[in-house]
Amino acid sequence: MFDDSTESASKVNEGIEQPPSLNPALKRLKGKIKHHLTIDDFFNGIKNKNIAVLSRAITMIESALPEHHQIAQQIIEKCLPYSGKSIRIGITGVPGVGKSTFIETFGNYITSLGRTLAVLAIDPSSEISHGSILGDKTRMETLSVNQNAFIRPSPSSGSLGGVANKTRETIILCEAAGFNTIIIETVGVGQSETAVHSMVDFFLLLMLAGAGDELQGIKRGIMEMADAIAITKADGNNETKARQAGIEYQNALHLFPPAESGWIPKVVTCSATQNIGISQIWNLVKNYFDEMSDKGFVLHRRQLQSKFWMYETINESLKENFYQKPEIKKELMFFEELVLQGKMTPHSAAANLLKDYLK
Amino acid sequence: MFDDSTESASKVNEGIEQPPSLNPALKRLKGKIKHHLTIDDFFNGIKNKNIAVLSRAITMIESALPEHHQIAQQIIEKCLPYSGKSIRIGITGVPGVGKSTFIETFGNYITSLGRTLAVLAIDPSSEISHGSILGDKTRMETLSVNQNAFIRPSPSSGSLGGVANKTRETIILCEAAGFNTIIIETVGVGQSETAVHSMVDFFLLLMLAGAGDELQGIKRGIMEMADAIAITKADGNNETKARQAGIEYQNALHLFPPAESGWIPKVVTCSATQNIGISQIWNLVKNYFDEMSDKGFVLHRRQLQSKFWMYETINESLKENFYQKPEIKKELMFFEELVLQGKMTPHSAAANLLKDYLK
Repeated sequence: MFDDSTESASKVNEGIEQPPSLNPALKRLKGKIKHHLTIDDFFNGIKNKNIAVLSRAITMIESALPEHHQIAQQIIEKCLPYSGKSIRIGITGVPGVGKSTFIETFGNYITSLGRTLAVLAIDPSSEISHGSILGDKTRMETLSVNQNAFIRPSPSSGSLGGVANKTRETIILCEAAGFNTIIIETVGVGQSETAVHSMVDFFLLLMLAGAGDELQGIKRGIMEMADAIAITKADGNNETKARQAGIEYQNALHLFPPAESGWIPKVVTCSATQNIGISQIWNLVKNYFDEMSDKGFVLHRRQLQSKFWMYETINESLKENFYQKPEIKKELMFFEELVLQGKMTPHSAAANLLKDYLK
Repeated sequence: MFDDSTESASKVNEGIEQPPSLNPALKRLKGKIKHHLTIDDFFNGIKNKNIAVLSRAITMIESALPEHHQIAQQIIEKCLPYSGKSIRIGITGVPGVGKSTFIETFGNYITSLGRTLAVLAIDPSSEISHGSILGDKTRMETLSVNQNAFIRPSPSSGSLGGVANKTRETIILCEAAGFNTIIIETVGVGQSETAVHSMVDFFLLLMLAGAGDELQGIKRGIMEMADAIAITKADGNNETKARQAGIEYQNALHLFPPAESGWIPKVVTCSATQNIGISQIWNLVKNYFDEMSDKGFVLHRRQLQSKFWMYETINESLKENFYQKPEIKKELMFFEELVLQGKMTPHSAAANLLKDYLK
């Protein structure tokens, strides 16, 4: 369904994507593309589902150059009225849980239903690999050549807040390009889950059976965010164990206070390699989305999320401005040390540091 | 053990405490106290366990007057080296769980072991009742006349951050006055739990058996903070139900990721009116504290808490400074509305609001 008449986009993604020859997914990005695109070119390209233009617009969002940033904001502004018409799904789980395999099978199932899928990622650790697309795409071989799927790796630099911001803006462009299903993937070991949870309609936590919680490395609080938990690798010898774990988690989740929506998180088992439980998970997501849409809760949650991000962006900017001042940087460690040694109250230390700044 | 030779302290607590005649606990506050106290007077009074002086110093902490604030900071600074030598226990639970009854029985048990106890409270809702001491003290009739216990109601005004700050400073004074056990009480329905959790060594959550989570009103995330859960009112017909609930919660907590300390939260049942399980809970707290002290974790946790509060205070001040600017106040709702209507991205709205401020 996507425009193929575009020239190599690898140029605009320099340093992010691998050479096309290494990656079959990039073949469809080949074709002619104008070197200089106006805002209208970007907008029309995105609206016409031109993946090369979409990719280039996302690169603008991720760019560190102020002029790119400005262009990106204008593109986003034009796309904004056409966004919002997708199911946004967050998926998390620690390495080893089989996240890529799951997303590949799950994604192919979703597109087999006639839907279009964009897979985005928030992975602060990707800074090390410079956000290489290779990792994600080679792990999702069949999804990456699926004509109805678009995989985009994590932005490779910046604070979590900055990265999350870029991902949220990328969602807008993907939705304007007609993708009606968005998966945001992240690793279940840090604060990025909270960020992802705050930009999706449904949050799915992948867990292993019997690995022991201490081995799973899931951070406290993440389980409470989940709209569903899927116990992965529920096949062969592992099936009984997975089923048992499923019952235990279901009992545990029942003890949690209910979410504002009244939804009680579900626990399911699945096997991505054996294609077991995949359609059930999609039905779960779809039913949740339909039920919550009818109740007006999807819109409500998205509005709360937008509000949250507005304030979050302001608050993060205020902090950044303060903590990056050279004079603050110089004094911060000194006062922190006094506080750690119990020689000064946190309150006094804060007052000392703020004294000049808030004048 | 506390100095009784002080004059009525009701004067310095005007508008906070009830007339002495209403409250037997205040009788021991009667006696002579100089009208004007120097910083040294305050410090020496506190060190000599003079409750009237301690109360007056706390009133200074809670005062809205800048000159009181300055005096308070100097008193705190002098007391700081003498603080830290207590077990700090946070206790939370929704109204109806029997919190006051529990604290009364628990507190009397603690003092019966020869310990001294200060009970402080963080209750943002107390603003409505102007922090009246009447509520707390009449609900704890025997503890309020216990010579080894000191009950101080919640500061009655200010933001949660401000109130929490005052409570943390009050802890310092109480510790300098020789109290070796501090209980910080709060209501399990809001953000105040996070604040209390960040200023105590041990966090105890009181729960009812079989009330159904939806009825208990405990906010999501609070259960994960608990070092122990006590199922209250485990007596008479309720005992079996409480025991069953205890087992369920224990199973559920086992599924949580472990705390940094490696501690696995315990679940116990108790009855404050029948004095069942009270000593076991104290033993639990004491064992936890001893074990964690040996491992160096108590100090470690307190240092993290101090650091947290330093940054929290800075960040809250930065926000307060921004959001209270008249020009920001004027524009904030306008941009928030655009964001809620999906007409502007949160990022653009934030950028617009920050434009002039960060110049």
